[in-house]
Amino acid sequence: MRQFCGACGGALKQSTPLGDERERSVCGDCGHVWYENPTPTVATVAVSSDGARVLLARRALAPCKGLWGIPGGFLEIGEAAENGAMREAWEECGAKLAQNTRLLAVYTVLPARQVQLVYRSILLNEENLAPGVESLNVKMFEWDSVPWDELAFSTNNWALAHARDTLAIDVPPPQLRTKMPDGSYDQVPS
Amino acid sequence: MRQFCGACGGALKQSTPLGDERERSVCGDCGHVWYENPTPTVATVAVSSDGARVLLARRALAPCKGLWGIPGGFLEIGEAAENGAMREAWEECGAKLAQNTRLLAVYTVLPARQVQLVYRSILLNEENLAPGVESLNVKMFEWDSVPWDELAFSTNNWALAHARDTLAIDVPPPQLRTKMPDGSYDQVPS
Repeated sequence: MRQFCGACGGALKQSTPLGDERERSVCGDCGHVWYENPTPTVATVAVSSDGARVLLARRALAPCKGLWGIPGGFLEIGEAAENGAMREAWEECGAKLAQNTRLLAVYTVLPARQVQLVYRSILLNEENLAPGVESLNVKMFEWDSVPWDELAFSTNNWALAHARDTLAIDVPPPQLRTKMPDGSYDQVPS
Repeated sequence: MRQFCGACGGALKQSTPLGDERERSVCGDCGHVWYENPTPTVATVAVSSDGARVLLARRALAPCKGLWGIPGGFLEIGEAAENGAMREAWEECGAKLAQNTRLLAVYTVLPARQVQLVYRSILLNEENLAPGVESLNVKMFEWDSVPWDELAFSTNNWALAHARDTLAIDVPPPQLRTKMPDGSYDQVPS
């Protein structure tokens, strides 16, 4: 929780600005309103060109160190969402991805205050992957061998299952889900 | 630009944290790193149940006061993206939308540091719309009458055209575009 104004260093208080309907962090000195919004993240289910295998990285860092996940992370200012997803796959796995990516899912993750954009892309360099500093190792898994019980996040389970189930579809229907604070999920009806 | 630490009020400096590759705002006193990320926004192309008309609101506020736009705004912490889009349609237009929304587009808007999620939904209460405080008026437009040259944002033009062109498709392929700093756009190839 912010305590001080980033603009002037004054003390922040919680109040509802005129015309607003929610409490915000407002500076008692300069009046600046510090809005907080969810953070966009980007991730990729990277599959081999024949669709038979999928790329996972074993996490070297908390949270969920030692568990497997699809490459992903925070979108940076100044980069297109799809480019952010490609950057993360490169940083974490040394993976090069094809340009014609598909949007696989949009997950609102309420407990983490995130909006996750998950893409499906074709992996171009299966033979020379290399774990980055955030990964213990990287590996291609046949769909039957995906370690479903050793995945870092439930959103990874969702995205991988949806990718597997829509492999034959050129433009998959994006899965629209919300992870609730209790770990359950809501899904937009199809 | 932040000048002071929100946690302790100390002076921020630009430096690259260990293991990071980008400069961040780091507190010289407590060491807190203040990451900045793009902001997610949500908007809806709300169409009549027969698909013939689309809802636009005339903006009462800057930027682009007096121009037309689809209802939308910033996603709040604690709400699902689809619910945020429905909330904005209600606040700005008094519009009630069907639950089976479709994701129409994801736009990275680099000059605004935004990631825009645009949905297509069926409008349930065409007969009793009501402009909110952010709207001068609200109106249903036949597709041939959409004021393309009086829209507030180019992303509105993109989303409306994509909605019109994919009206007959139950699950439209999401349009994945990036608005560049010079106003042009990149698009993921299909």
